[in-house]
Amino acid sequence: MQLTSEQAQAIVAAAAAKAAEIKVPMNIAVLDAGGHPKMFLRMDGAVRGAIDIATKKAKTAVLFEVNSETLWEFCKPGGPAQGLQFTNDILVTFAGGIPLKTRDGEMLGAIGISGGEVSQDVQVAKAGFAAFIG
Amino acid sequence: MQLTSEQAQAIVAAAAAKAAEIKVPMNIAVLDAGGHPKMFLRMDGAVRGAIDIATKKAKTAVLFEVNSETLWEFCKPGGPAQGLQFTNDILVTFAGGIPLKTRDGEMLGAIGISGGEVSQDVQVAKAGFAAFIG
Amino acid sequence: MQLTSEQAQAIVAAAAAKAAEIKVPMNIAVLDAGGHPKMFLRMDGAVRGAIDIATKKAKTAVLFEVNSETLWEFCKPGGPAQGLQFTNDILVTFAGGIPLKTRDGEMLGAIGISGGEVSQDVQVAKAGFAAFIG
Amino acid sequence: MQLTSEQAQAIVAAAAAKAAEIKVPMNIAVLDAGGHPKMFLRMDGAVRGAIDIATKKAKTAVLFEVNSETLWEFCKPGGPAQGLQFTNDILVTFAGGIPLKTRDGEMLGAIGISGGEVSQDVQVAKAGFAAFIG
Repeated sequence: MQLTSEQAQAIVAAAAAKAAEIKVPMNIAVLDAGGHPKMFLRMDGAVRGAIDIATKKAKTAVLFEVNSETLWEFCKPGGPAQGLQFTNDILVTFAGGIPLKTRDGEMLGAIGISGGEVSQDVQVAKAGFAAFIG
Repeated sequence: MQLTSEQAQAIVAAAAAKAAEIKVPMNIAVLDAGGHPKMFLRMDGAVRGAIDIATKKAKTAVLFEVNSETLWEFCKPGGPAQGLQFTNDILVTFAGGIPLKTRDGEMLGAIGISGGEVSQDVQVAKAGFAAFIG
Repeated sequence: MQLTSEQAQAIVAAAAAKAAEIKVPMNIAVLDAGGHPKMFLRMDGAVRGAIDIATKKAKTAVLFEVNSETLWEFCKPGGPAQGLQFTNDILVTFAGGIPLKTRDGEMLGAIGISGGEVSQDVQVAKAGFAAFIG
Repeated sequence: MQLTSEQAQAIVAAAAAKAAEIKVPMNIAVLDAGGHPKMFLRMDGAVRGAIDIATKKAKTAVLFEVNSETLWEFCKPGGPAQGLQFTNDILVTFAGGIPLKTRDGEMLGAIGISGGEVSQDVQVAKAGFAAFIG
């Protein structure tokens, strides 16, 4: 099963709606299961420095098949895999990247959000995921 | 004046509609005036190898403020600037990248299309541009 | 509105004058709103290792539309976005990068200074900014 | 002997004056003998795609201690060193890069110009060089 454009558009629309609701313009990246871009939107006013962060959150989620912040447990000071975050051309290990896994556990891609406080990014990423999982 | 999300979405929708009409799934990249991603869509079935091509066509158009194929006159065999295409982390010098210039000549960004024959890419890029210029 | 050469030259001249006054040769980088180089000067005696630092300070300021050191609050140990500084091909998150925002809040680019103590870099960056804002 | 800021500024001013005279806005890059940036100016209206070209012309001149177009004899089709232009993170092998050699043959750096027709770039590069050699 592959992530469709229709799904990607629904995910981006739901994320953008949540971002508009909380009044924080966001960068919204959707990658497919192979880590290739499927859809991207930079809302008006979202900082350009967060384009790369959104994309790398999604990349981190898709490559490790977990939420981006899960990686932090491994690479934080004192963790067992320090430096992990510098592999794969830089991972982003704070929250806002969520793998798009179906209820059957098949991973079709990931969403990555950046532009606000981390907690806001998460809210928006969850709204995008909710549109995916239905 | 900055390219808005609303404009970017109209451009992408028009390009995708034309691509659907000619039955060739496309990668559709929209960059802003500074060359930063504003919107991207990979239609279902569009080859992933063309993601980078679409993006680099748009980059070429935005950096030189001309259609991407214009550069080829300079760097083709016998041209005055051979090797030009290897600068700027690789330019794409065939057609499918069009700067988004207003009727007043202000450049707000560029559209880049890749996924089909070059002539098909151009058709789709023109449809996207038409939605911009109105 | 675009940053002009005349503005860039006034900014660089003012920064260089301040650097001469405090007797610390500096690297002075001015980027436009899209993050592209507008002007650069390495004063005699400024270390070459600080060329990249000056440029990345300006890049950080322009991409996030804040002073470069603002980012440190997010990515310092215990901060909410650790690793942020490794995105965007490396950000520089100490002081010396200032966005060139008009009194109306429009950002036309950024100045980045490196070559001395951080506090000296800031002094010189502020002198450059003062020449911009008038 | 090292290229001074004063020399760099005189070179850039002379190049910019010539560019203004022929009414073609240019990117003007001056590197030192080690290939590090000494000064850069993008004139208003100069295309941003030519920033990298100007810089790489100067890099080519400084690394091989000849005019940038001299390399083309080696790497052109049928030449003895094909692919040469892809080394050193891409060289630019058309005209507009001139090493800053003193009358005694000491090389202090290079100037690279891009933004117009190649012949115009050369005119402007020569004007910059003339300000250097006196």
